[in-house]
Order: sequence, then structure tokens, then C-alpha cells
Amino acid sequence: MLIVQKYGGSSVADPARMENVARRVLSARLGGHDVVVVVSARGNTTDRLLDEAQKTNPGAAKREVDMLLATGEQCSCALLAMMIQGMGHSALSLNAYQAGITATSAHMSARIKSIDAHRIKAELDSNQIVIVAGFQGVNRRGDVATLGRGGSDTTAVALAAVLHADICEIYTDVEGVYSADPRIVTTAVKLPEISYFEMLELASLGANVLAKRSVGLAKKYGVRLVVKSSMKDCEGTVVKEEAKMEGIYISGVAVDKDIVRVSISGVKDEPGVWFKVFSIMNRDNIAIDFIQQVRHDDGTKDITFTVAKDEVEGAITALNGSTHRLGFNSVSHCGGIAKLSVVSTGMATNPGVPSMMFEALFDAGINIDSISTSEIRASVLIDTAEADRAANLVHEKFRNGKYIMG
Amino acid sequence: MLIVQKYGGSSVADPARMENVARRVLSARLGGHDVVVVVSARGNTTDRLLDEAQKTNPGAAKREVDMLLATGEQCSCALLAMMIQGMGHSALSLNAYQAGITATSAHMSARIKSIDAHRIKAELDSNQIVIVAGFQGVNRRGDVATLGRGGSDTTAVALAAVLHADICEIYTDVEGVYSADPRIVTTAVKLPEISYFEMLELASLGANVLAKRSVGLAKKYGVRLVVKSSMKDCEGTVVKEEAKMEGIYISGVAVDKDIVRVSISGVKDEPGVWFKVFSIMNRDNIAIDFIQQVRHDDGTKDITFTVAKDEVEGAITALNGSTHRLGFNSVSHCGGIAKLSVVSTGMATNPGVPSMMFEALFDAGINIDSISTSEIRASVLIDTAEADRAANLVHEKFRNGKYIMG
Repeated sequence: MLIVQKYGGSSVADPARMENVARRVLSARLGGHDVVVVVSARGNTTDRLLDEAQKTNPGAAKREVDMLLATGEQCSCALLAMMIQGMGHSALSLNAYQAGITATSAHMSARIKSIDAHRIKAELDSNQIVIVAGFQGVNRRGDVATLGRGGSDTTAVALAAVLHADICEIYTDVEGVYSADPRIVTTAVKLPEISYFEMLELASLGANVLAKRSVGLAKKYGVRLVVKSSMKDCEGTVVKEEAKMEGIYISGVAVDKDIVRVSISGVKDEPGVWFKVFSIMNRDNIAIDFIQQVRHDDGTKDITFTVAKDEVEGAITALNGSTHRLGFNSVSHCGGIAKLSVVSTGMATNPGVPSMMFEALFDAGINIDSISTSEIRASVLIDTAEADRAANLVHEKFRNGKYIMG
Repeated sequence: MLIVQKYGGSSVADPARMENVARRVLSARLGGHDVVVVVSARGNTTDRLLDEAQKTNPGAAKREVDMLLATGEQCSCALLAMMIQGMGHSALSLNAYQAGITATSAHMSARIKSIDAHRIKAELDSNQIVIVAGFQGVNRRGDVATLGRGGSDTTAVALAAVLHADICEIYTDVEGVYSADPRIVTTAVKLPEISYFEMLELASLGANVLAKRSVGLAKKYGVRLVVKSSMKDCEGTVVKEEAKMEGIYISGVAVDKDIVRVSISGVKDEPGVWFKVFSIMNRDNIAIDFIQQVRHDDGTKDITFTVAKDEVEGAITALNGSTHRLGFNSVSHCGGIAKLSVVSTGMATNPGVPSMMFEALFDAGINIDSISTSEIRASVLIDTAEADRAANLVHEKFRNGKYIMG
């Protein structure tokens, strides 16, 4: 069997943890498998390097920031290779140049274009445990480009796809994918399995277990993913095409507090307004949700929507730069809101699922600001202060009704 | 003019020092020159990384150690590029892959094989200040190999040779090449110029201003070197084919305390012994000096020679591994000795130079253990405890006789 394993920064943060990772890698190897390992930079290395770049030049070219950041993964994969060698096994580390990972030129948010895996295959053939630096690729100019958030997960899934790995194991500091964030919802349970679709919704809903793009890539290439703990020996969560689903199961209740509401006032009430708003946001790759509008008698309207907290600055800038296209009086934004979502592929054919969420919130006297739904999720916007209590109540409601598989 | 500048680790050890380097680079740029900069890893980064490798696995494959070490220079060149950008100028950093530096496969002591400078030239043509990571090359397998001691100096000289640079400036924490180590000899003076030959002797005699191999490379390709201070604005020392030399000038008095005497006892007194000793040492690239032998009546002899302190272990191992070739009773080594040398190209035609050294030592009652001379240097082995005093007295003797150009 060929196994791709990915370990995040916290799993290799110090020598003791890295040794634990080395043992885990060896256990797969000693089980007779070929193993390719993808590692992130240790602990808070990436943040530390970003901070250094920021202090050196707040406006540093992203190309240079990438040169700096990429060293984090190069260090961790070299050290892990040394540690495995110290345990008496053959291992070698590969940076993006050596691993043949080609990326787009978008520094700090590059995408993997292709992987020339001949070196990796040759090393596997000579019985090496191959350790690849996550989060990085080489662009057309021959420069290092980092892959942005969730980059190492993406490296692992892309390698698993190209190598036709039997499984891609994503090791994290949690034990798998939960029906809700266990830090918030006390009765959250670990799911034995989940579909790509559901995982995609959960990944984009603030359940930070797996990066959304890596799930999308896994779905595209049919890579079987397992999310599991790097600390404990226990079954994780399998992410695959179709999860077992007799009856209606809720895959998760998610809370996202990192959202901000953007309000545009005095927009002319005429056709094409929303098209313009979407196209302005799309240009900068900013996703919007919870769209609302209020018409006024004077032929204008106010429109609001939500964006991720770290994109609000870009959104405001983009809007202000487009006043000529989209006539309006002013743009403002405010926080204090949270998105509470329920995800279930069974929802498409069963409208009872959203109703149960609304009922739980109603019973608790929690006000719903607005609602947004897709085929497999239902989300409500509520006051941030109520978010955790609401998540617990909604989760409890579904759990009592045996809608959560755990 | 095309200038290659090299800055060592101490010159970029902290943000303030790096800013000073950035200003120096810009001053050359604003003088209308094309500038290629080579930087070492900051401060004690390389030692810190080596220590980390050692702790992770004392027997780590050198290939992996190189993966780790190479990040030091990648960080410093990225940060310097950012800093220069912050001052409003175009700059970009290049690691060994990007700079096209090909090296041999000998990890941790690789040699530069060739440089494909097309990327560097293209960046210079687009008015970039190009900052190259020193100390590293890419070997035939596509792996990073570091260049060993003096590696960044060598990178700078090799780039200057390939780019046909007008000058290669080596910035250090001293002001140039001195007639003796100013920390030891109080009356040492900075030399305005020195020949490659003399610099080669001084570099191998413990005057750690320039790595010997970089001087050899500069000589081979006729690269005009200047050694100067990264802190103070003052003339440095020019290293070139033939230094001005009317009359006899002493280029330097050097003290090397990092040597050890190796003694082999009970060697059969027959032809070929020294050939064997040299060939055993050559195999591991170990230079030997101060060769002596004492014949015994029983048909055996004891032989002694000196090696650099950090090569003594290798020397002893090599000898013990060759007992079948070179019959002997035992090998031992002892320290406590220092090499005091005088370097002058004028010496070849003027035997008075060594005599003056011997006279100074005789006057001071310092015992000479043994003597070794070449065309342009005369060295004596003395007690370490006397070394500094001896260096001062010998330097003073030459200075008083106006043999030192300052």
C-alpha cells in the first residue's frame, strides 16, 4: 500500500512531538507500506517569519516573503528525515524543487499546477521514506511560491492524487471530524465518516480541521482521506465520496464567528445591482453570504451581506474603488454576528432539518437575524454572544433525535 | 561597473546591522553600478542549525544537514531584499536553484562546478539589485549542497568570475588585511594591498579574513578582491596579482594556535615511509607541516608532523586504519604548540627575512621547536604560551626596519 501522511505544525512543534511523528511514520513503514510524508513548518514558525518580514518591510514583495516562509517547511522536513535516520531507517527530505511541485505564480496564495513525481517514485523504489516540504511549489520563473492557508493539506492531497496513493492520512491535534466544535459543544461526537460535499461545507463554515481546497482536490481526484490524531491511537474520520447514510444524518453543527456584515447604503434601486456587487467581489475572490436588501421610497435601497473577517478590508476597498460602476452613498461594516450552520446531505430531500434548528433557537429565545441555505446546509445569522449556547442547543436537539451518527 | 559584494553573518546579524548593509548596497547602486550581493546566514544561525541537527541525530546524513543549513542563507537574502525594497529600490533574492549555482555532490563541503548566470544577468538587466544566498549550490541530483567553511566568500568570487565583475568586495568585521592580528599584535597595520600568493599563505596561516579557497579561485580567474569593513567607511585591502613591491615588504606576521602535533613511534626505517604518510593524509585532504623524524638504533624511527586541530581526529583514524601499509607501534598527539609565520614575496630572493625573525626570537629567549619554510613564508613552531609575545616582537622588528607597508 502507498500511504501519504500529513502532519501539521503543532504535531512537529518540538523534538518530543517530532519523535512521536517519526514513530508513527515508522509504524506505517514497518507495516510493509510505502510512505510519503508531508510536513508543515514547526509550531509557530510561519507566524514568526511573517512577523519578521512585517518588521523588515511591511510592504515587502510577496515573492520575498515566500522565499522566507518556505524555509520553515524545509527545516521541518530535514529534521524529521534526520530523526527517522536516527531510528535506523532510510529517509530523505525533498523541498518543492526536488519534489517536482509546480505552482502558479500567485505568491503567498499559489495553487499547485502539476507534480513531476519521478524523483519521489525513484526514492520510494529505493526504499526511502520520502518527506516532502508542504505549503510550497516552484513557479514558472523558478521561484518558490507558498500555497496559502491549508497549503500543506493541499500538498498532501495533490501528492496522493499523482502517486495514486491508497490513502491520504491528515494528522491533526484533534481526533477527527466532529459533529460540532468540541470546545464549544460539550456533547459533540466524532464522526466515523463524512462525504466530500459535507466536509466542504464544514470546512468553509469555520470547522478548521481540513482546508476547503484540499477537500475539493480530494473530491476531484477521488483521494480517500482520513483525518486523525497525531497524538492518540484511535480511528479518525474517513472523508470519501458517499458516506453511509441510511436515514437522515446531520454531519455537523458549525459556528463561525469570524464574519463581518458589510452594508452599502443609497444604492440606486435598478436591475443589475447584485450582478455588479458579485462581480466586484469575485474579482478579488471574496465570497459573500446572507444577502439582504431594504428598498426605500426614494428609489434607492440599502444592501447588506457578510464576508469573512480577514476579507472585509479588501471588500471595502474594492467597493469604494467602484463607486462609478455602482452608485451609492456609503459603505460600512460591523461585527458582533456569528453564523450557525447545520450540514447534512439528507437535507436536500428533507426540509425538516432546518425546521428543527429554527425550533431549537425559538425555544431558547434566540433571535435569528437572517437565513441562508444551500442543498446541504442551513445557516442562520445570530448575535455572537449567543453563538455557543445556540450551537449546544441545536446540536442537542439533533442528537436527542438520533440524527447524529457517532 | 558591475560590483559583487559579500557580507558575512556578523554584518547582517540583527536588523540594525542589516540596515547598514542595505545602505551600503544602495550607495553602490546610486553610484550608477550594477550590484550583486552575496550574504551569509545571520549571526550564529548556521551554528544554531548545526546544533539542532546534532541534537536530532548526531549521525544525520550530511544531505539532510545541508537541507537544514541552506535555509539560513535563504532567510538572510530574502530579508535583505525586503529591506532594500523598503528603501524604495528594486531588489530580489535568489537561492542556489534560482541563481543557477551547480556544485559537486560532497555535502557540507561541496565545490562550485559552474554557474548558469542567465537569470542573474536578466535580473540585472531589469535594474534589480540581485541578492544571492551564499554557501550553497545544487548538485547533480538536484539536492542542495553547502560549500563548507568560507563558502560564501567562494560564492562571491565565483559569481564575480562568471559575471566578469569589475570588483569583488568582501565586507567583514575588520577593516582589511593586517600585517598581523590586531588583537594580538598592538602595532599591526592595515595593508593597502597584498598579492594573491601572500594572501593564500596568510589565509592558511590562521589570519581568518578570507577563506583560502576563495583567494585561490580569485587568483585563478583574476578576480580583483577588496577586503573592507562593513561598519566603517574606509579603504580596505586590495588583493590582486602583484602588489606594489619596491624593496622587501613583509605582508604579515601570523600566529596559528589551532595546530596539533602528531607523533608516530616505531616506524620501520626504510624508504617510502613519508610517501605512505603523505598519501594516507592526502586521501582525506589533510595538510601536514613541520615534518620531523628521529632515527633509533634498532632500525625504527619516530616521526612527527603537525595538522590543523580540527583534522587531528581524522588523521589519527586514517593512520590507525593503515597499520598494515605503514608498520608502527603507536600514534599519539599533543597540543601546546603554535605556529608563528612571516609572509613576504620578497623572501625568495632575500634570506635575510627569516634571519630577522630568528634574531627577534633569540633576543627574547623564545625557544624554536622547529622550522618550516616555503618560497614566500618562514614559519617556526613555538610554545603556545609564548606565541602572542613572539608575534609582537617579530612584528616590531620588521616594522622598525621599515619592512612593513602600512
